[in-house]
Amino acid sequence: MRYDLPSDQIPTAWYNALAHLDEPLQPPLHPGTNEPAGPDDLAPLFPMALIEQEMTAAPWVDVPGEVLDILRLWRPTPLIRATRLEAELETPARIYYKDESISPAGSHKPNTAVPQAFYNKSEGITRIATETGAGQWGSSMAFAAAQYGIESKVYMVRASFEQKPYRRILMETWGSECVPSPVDDPSSPGSLGMAISDAVRDAGGRADTHYALGSVLNHVLLHQTVIGLEAKEQLALAGETRPDVVLSSHGGGSNLGGIAFPFMEDDKVRLLAVEPTSCPSLTAGEFKYDFGDEAGLTPLLPMYTLGSHFMPPSIHAGGLRYHGSSPIIAALVKSGRMEATAYPQSKVFEAAVLMARTEGKIPAPETAHAVRGAIDEALAAKETGEERVILFNYSGHGFLDLSAYDAYNHGQLVDEG
Amino acid sequence: MRYDLPSDQIPTAWYNALAHLDEPLQPPLHPGTNEPAGPDDLAPLFPMALIEQEMTAAPWVDVPGEVLDILRLWRPTPLIRATRLEAELETPARIYYKDESISPAGSHKPNTAVPQAFYNKSEGITRIATETGAGQWGSSMAFAAAQYGIESKVYMVRASFEQKPYRRILMETWGSECVPSPVDDPSSPGSLGMAISDAVRDAGGRADTHYALGSVLNHVLLHQTVIGLEAKEQLALAGETRPDVVLSSHGGGSNLGGIAFPFMEDDKVRLLAVEPTSCPSLTAGEFKYDFGDEAGLTPLLPMYTLGSHFMPPSIHAGGLRYHGSSPIIAALVKSGRMEATAYPQSKVFEAAVLMARTEGKIPAPETAHAVRGAIDEALAAKETGEERVILFNYSGHGFLDLSAYDAYNHGQLVDEG
Repeated sequence: MRYDLPSDQIPTAWYNALAHLDEPLQPPLHPGTNEPAGPDDLAPLFPMALIEQEMTAAPWVDVPGEVLDILRLWRPTPLIRATRLEAELETPARIYYKDESISPAGSHKPNTAVPQAFYNKSEGITRIATETGAGQWGSSMAFAAAQYGIESKVYMVRASFEQKPYRRILMETWGSECVPSPVDDPSSPGSLGMAISDAVRDAGGRADTHYALGSVLNHVLLHQTVIGLEAKEQLALAGETRPDVVLSSHGGGSNLGGIAFPFMEDDKVRLLAVEPTSCPSLTAGEFKYDFGDEAGLTPLLPMYTLGSHFMPPSIHAGGLRYHGSSPIIAALVKSGRMEATAYPQSKVFEAAVLMARTEGKIPAPETAHAVRGAIDEALAAKETGEERVILFNYSGHGFLDLSAYDAYNHGQLVDEG
Repeated sequence: MRYDLPSDQIPTAWYNALAHLDEPLQPPLHPGTNEPAGPDDLAPLFPMALIEQEMTAAPWVDVPGEVLDILRLWRPTPLIRATRLEAELETPARIYYKDESISPAGSHKPNTAVPQAFYNKSEGITRIATETGAGQWGSSMAFAAAQYGIESKVYMVRASFEQKPYRRILMETWGSECVPSPVDDPSSPGSLGMAISDAVRDAGGRADTHYALGSVLNHVLLHQTVIGLEAKEQLALAGETRPDVVLSSHGGGSNLGGIAFPFMEDDKVRLLAVEPTSCPSLTAGEFKYDFGDEAGLTPLLPMYTLGSHFMPPSIHAGGLRYHGSSPIIAALVKSGRMEATAYPQSKVFEAAVLMARTEGKIPAPETAHAVRGAIDEALAAKETGEERVILFNYSGHGFLDLSAYDAYNHGQLVDEG
């Protein structure tokens, strides 16, 4: 059963979690001086509108009309009650998922790529440089840049560039230039940290170019709150007063923040982060200041982190490879407002296949972590006989990640240690 | 701008084009005797409910509740007005497309795979054998079989099985067994005709197994009419009295019939088939009885055909490789009720990229033919200054067909001689 909002009920303001934290966030620190970083430090890389959003205490931030015009290509996204999954689990819980997979790029990432492209264009920037791992973020930025007629260049981790050409083709189809990273060492397989360095150097060296990031930062999570804001309206359409638990997968924090933040003021709603045991920043990381990238070019942010040189084991196929976390998510976990749990990949793909065979949908491996979390919440409700209302974010489809399913289907995915 | 129907406004009866033809169709002929084939001839391969649907004169056929329960996983699909494409074309036309790409398998094919699986299960069949080329149909049947807990085995053209593993992985994830065809000659690249033979032989040899076909047959097109029936309601929501032209890509005819048939009784609505110049059955084929497959195992049907041994040139990347056509589509073209046009692939991919850069969506190469047709209808309206209302079927996404885009983006797609 699907609950749709009409095109004219797309949210017109973003929900700012910063305004609702119990304590203000610790400030970002300049990577060179370790002193608090101000707007001027970020100005070479980001437009002023985004820098303001990074720091604003306003409870709501208006979405520009020119952004709404593009978001309406696929938003509002559907809220779907997973009745066939519920039946399979024989649970009294009601499971709802917000389907972000229908966006042009197939994930939630365009929700922030579009306003980022817009604000850059508004301030006279005609070119964006960014990095991408497997390509989710790079393809979203390529799409968004095309909508505003600006150029984009994406530095893609070389191993993915060579082995997973599909999202590179998406980027090129949308008119973006995509190159393997590191640019100066064709023998290196690359890493996200190296690709960030390539993109930051590109943006730093050209006046017409800014940098863009797809997760972690406050303004990125702000833009993703359209997910939770729509879900709230749609749950009301479904006759639900509130969800008992809102959960999603956790990598850099943007899809989780997007669905969870609009519920954070309601103490009766549990918030839950689901991460891989292979990259357990919230469940096994340390809370401290750390760099966002491997090379130490970004400001230091207060976060749960596994260390900026952390690499998940090579057997890990499930995405969510970021060593750290968004400062806002970290603050919510630290204060106890948000819970976190971790799963090995065998349990994650088992859940993904159950979703595929009941609801028909093949989730991205990242998204499958949320599916696992939702199923276990539903099974817990079955134990206690509770009518628990579960809301999770279906952050993206798996059509471009099928090789991981192939490995799972043929018994070739093993768990760590 | 998107026009959604709520979940409870899914069509509850299919529109039967057979009841609205000016003249009855010529009957199928038995491949051995050349005599009209009756229900008994088809009974080893199909359930009786589908054989009845193949021949019924009833104007409407009820959709079983158990089928609606599954279709509701993604239906009704959105109707979207392509305002950004219109603006790019500077056309006074209004372009609407029906988005069938959001189905679990990413195309319109599950609309018939689901009822086919249901009717088979209802008559005690526990296993379905079918064939697939690149995998659109096979993955849809794998999905549908999983929903009803029956087995499926898909014979996949060996060249695709080896070079395009993604839809094979989809099928396996949904629990289907997928094998390369021909099964008895590992050195052959295979063909759709050979795969049909493998599947028909499988089904003919086992009492628990039936065969299933994804296009061409009357009952298949019947099931696809949910597309046009929904679109009619949604155009009314958009304030349109009627479309001036309804068009789609033409391969075997199922997605075209699905969107066009519900408009066939209104003489003010033009109907248009769009096919590749590399496989021009309607625009350059002969109207006659022909086999559905290469091996001559199927009944002979009256159709426009290029001959059952026809193979498109190897440069052709755009799908729609079927040599023949559905008898109903053929009858409409023959009587002049439906027009047909053909495009070379360079024009088709040019249109696809324009769609990607304006509306954000990357169509399947098959679907891109419809996009091309819609764009040219809009440009014609611009010439004459008409407010033409154009409706086309966006039959599937291109996420699993990106290698063709890669070739186009890098100038490696050429047109036929």
